[in-house]
This record gives sequence, structure tokens and C-alpha cells, in this order.
Amino acid sequence: MGTPRRPVIEVPQPAFLFDLDGTLVDSVYQHVIAWQQALEACGVPLSVWRIHRRIGMSGGLFLNALQRETGRSLDAGTLERLSALHAEAYLRLSGSVVPLPGARELLARLQREGVPFAVATSGAALTATSALDLLGLPAGTPVVTRDLVERAKPDPHLFLAAAELLGVDPRHSFVVGDSIWDLMAAQRAGALGVGLLSGGYGRAELAGAGAYRVYADPAEMLERLEEVGVRPAL
Amino acid sequence: MGTPRRPVIEVPQPAFLFDLDGTLVDSVYQHVIAWQQALEACGVPLSVWRIHRRIGMSGGLFLNALQRETGRSLDAGTLERLSALHAEAYLRLSGSVVPLPGARELLARLQREGVPFAVATSGAALTATSALDLLGLPAGTPVVTRDLVERAKPDPHLFLAAAELLGVDPRHSFVVGDSIWDLMAAQRAGALGVGLLSGGYGRAELAGAGAYRVYADPAEMLERLEEVGVRPAL
Repeated sequence: MGTPRRPVIEVPQPAFLFDLDGTLVDSVYQHVIAWQQALEACGVPLSVWRIHRRIGMSGGLFLNALQRETGRSLDAGTLERLSALHAEAYLRLSGSVVPLPGARELLARLQREGVPFAVATSGAALTATSALDLLGLPAGTPVVTRDLVERAKPDPHLFLAAAELLGVDPRHSFVVGDSIWDLMAAQRAGALGVGLLSGGYGRAELAGAGAYRVYADPAEMLERLEEVGVRPAL
Repeated sequence: MGTPRRPVIEVPQPAFLFDLDGTLVDSVYQHVIAWQQALEACGVPLSVWRIHRRIGMSGGLFLNALQRETGRSLDAGTLERLSALHAEAYLRLSGSVVPLPGARELLARLQREGVPFAVATSGAALTATSALDLLGLPAGTPVVTRDLVERAKPDPHLFLAAAELLGVDPRHSFVVGDSIWDLMAAQRAGALGVGLLSGGYGRAELAGAGAYRVYADPAEMLERLEEVGVRPAL
């Protein structure tokens, strides 16, 4: 009898697909207030917490949900005007947006260790650019904005496109996001989801949407990086 | 042997002690952004979701928590300046504050049924007045603001003072609030707590802080008023 065969198990280094608003930059509340101002200007009443719960999902689905929750149907012109007013109000408020604690350090650490990562946001290129500028992303970091895919979260397209650009398998990727829409899209993409409290959702909501792990913010995730498969280089 | 004695059980009509911001008026996000602007002006960095989680608690405890979370100790002058800047920024934003759906109708219904109610807020009289004006409170409704008691939530003083003004026993009162600080203060006061999602906390957080029942907003509470002991007059 020979020695027992030791099976070869290969688990690739995971890649990271990051949401942007509320995950890497502290911009969710400015988006909430910007939507509130846009809705008010169009005479559409909606409680602010209901807006907050919809941030990060596709703009089209947001407006669908809006019509359901207000019991009003909005014509195409109003929907376009809402989007434009939101972008305008957000850019006015965006001077107070800063990177979340640990965001720059987390990305720098991944870069140093050679761990692939990308950014995938439901935001339009117009509003995303000012947030991306704060992060000092390494040249060549793939960034997928709403404009580049057919459907936004909770559909998986944004994260699938980000994985494609990185050349990684979504099943070996972690989606990192602050909203239940990120975590639902992670599941749809066949990836694992990491929830961050930094967008204002509670821990139980994120866990209930299937998070593999929940951290306070990028700084806490960085401290516990071995829980998501990144170990210090020897 | 006589007929068995039927015990006399008297349960008084419950009274209601309402929080204000996020419970009756849709003002939490404006308070959050106002604190963020005040902190930024004083050079104190704090993530916006952490501010949100502190809204509704005593200003003194808020500033204590702030010093713990930022690892900085702030002198009395800075603390006073923060409070003043917050009030200023809030009043600037308060034009967009409206009553929450069902708030006016809920209070009118309680009034019509002769159910006692009061308002108890951690806010200062200065910032509370503009919110109270939106509600069309019946003359004589007791209102307790921060200035009138020694300690604010999660200490029970505000709700105990409100019960005292109504001449009711806190044990026969429901505290209605949107934050965990309201629900903690309810428990400290010996009252039952009703949580509302309209301040942006998730259902599990409110349930975890001891809520007897959680509703979306005053409109949903009004629809289910029999669950908190108010039945239509015959």
C-alpha cells in the first residue's frame, strides 16, 4: 500500500468588487437630501427614510418604487427632470463628501498585495467622478458606472461587468457594499457579499440580505482582512 | 356554594408620549446634515452614519460619544460652538421639513377619542418650535423640551416629565419614537415603547431596543391603533 494521496485543493486569491457611495466615500446622506430636494421641486412627497432605503438601487427601479409608494404615476418628462435635479443638488452638496475611514488605506493595501479589485456603482458617471477623485485610485483600476450596463443593482450586471474587466470569476470575488441592493446583486452574481454599516443600514438588515460578514466601515474591514481571504505577504 | 366571583380587572386607557424628530416630523436627515456641517466647520471628522445613530440622544451624551469615537477631547468652547452651529445649520435646512404621513391625523384621532398625549423631545426649544408648528397641536398639549429637564434620552426624565404634566402613570403609557434612545428611555421610565421606522433605523434595531411593536410611520400606527389599546368610541 502506498502513502494516502493528498488531494490538491486550489482556491484562487479572491478579488474585490466595491460599491462606491456609502462603501468607499461618505456620500449617502448627501444623495438622500439631493433626492429629497429634487422630489420636493417636482411636488412629489416621499418620507426621507424611504429615499434612504432606495439609495444604491437602479435609478429606474427607484422611480418605479417611488410611483408605487406615492401611488402616483410620473410621466417620462418628470422622471428625467427628477434625475437632472438630483444630479444638480448632489453636486451642490458634494463639497462635504470625504473618503470613509480606511478606504484609501484598504485599497492601497490590496494594491500592495497584488489583490485584484474594481469599483461598480449604480451612480451615473457624472456624479461618480467627483467621488472617485477622492480615493486616489491606482491608474488602470476598472470602474463600472450605471451608464455602461443594461441594468443596475439589485441586478448583477454591474458586478459581473467589473469581474469581467478584472478577468476574474465572480464566484471567487467578494462584493463589498453598504446597502441590501449590493448584497442582493452579490447573490445574483454568485459572489459572496460583505456589508458595511457606513451607509446607514443596520447590521441585521445587511445580514438578512445575505452578507457573509458585516463590518463598520473600510477601516474595520482592513483590520480583519484575513476573514476575507487576504493574508499578509510573507 | 355561591356563583364564582368574577374578578374586577381595571386597565386604564393608555396615554401616549411622543418623540418629535423622526416620529411626528420628517426632520432626522436635516439634523444629521446640520451636525455634519457643524462638525466639519470645527474640524472634527465623523462619518455621517455615526451621527445618524446618535440623533435623538442627549446633546451632552452625543458630544461624549463623539469624543470617544474621534479619540479627541473637545474643550467647552468647541462644544458650545458645535451646538450653536448645529442649530444655525438646522434652521437653514428646516424649510424642507414636513409632518410625517399620518402624524396630524393620528394626533387628531387621539384628541377626538379623548386619549391623553404629550410630546417629549431631546431637541432644544429653539429648534423644536419650527417642527411643532407643523403639527397643528391642540391648545394645551404638553410639550417637554430638553431645556426643561436635567437629563435627556436615554435617561427617562423627558418622558417622566411628560407623563407628570398629563397626570398619568408612565406604566400606563406608550412611548412612541424612531430611535433606540427613545425605546431605552421608555424602558427606564417603566413604559412600553412603540418604534417607528420613519427616522431611518431598521426594524431589528428597534425590536432589539425593546419595542413592543414597530410601525413604518404614524400613518401605519393609526391604522393599527387597536394594537396599542385605542378602540373606536362606540
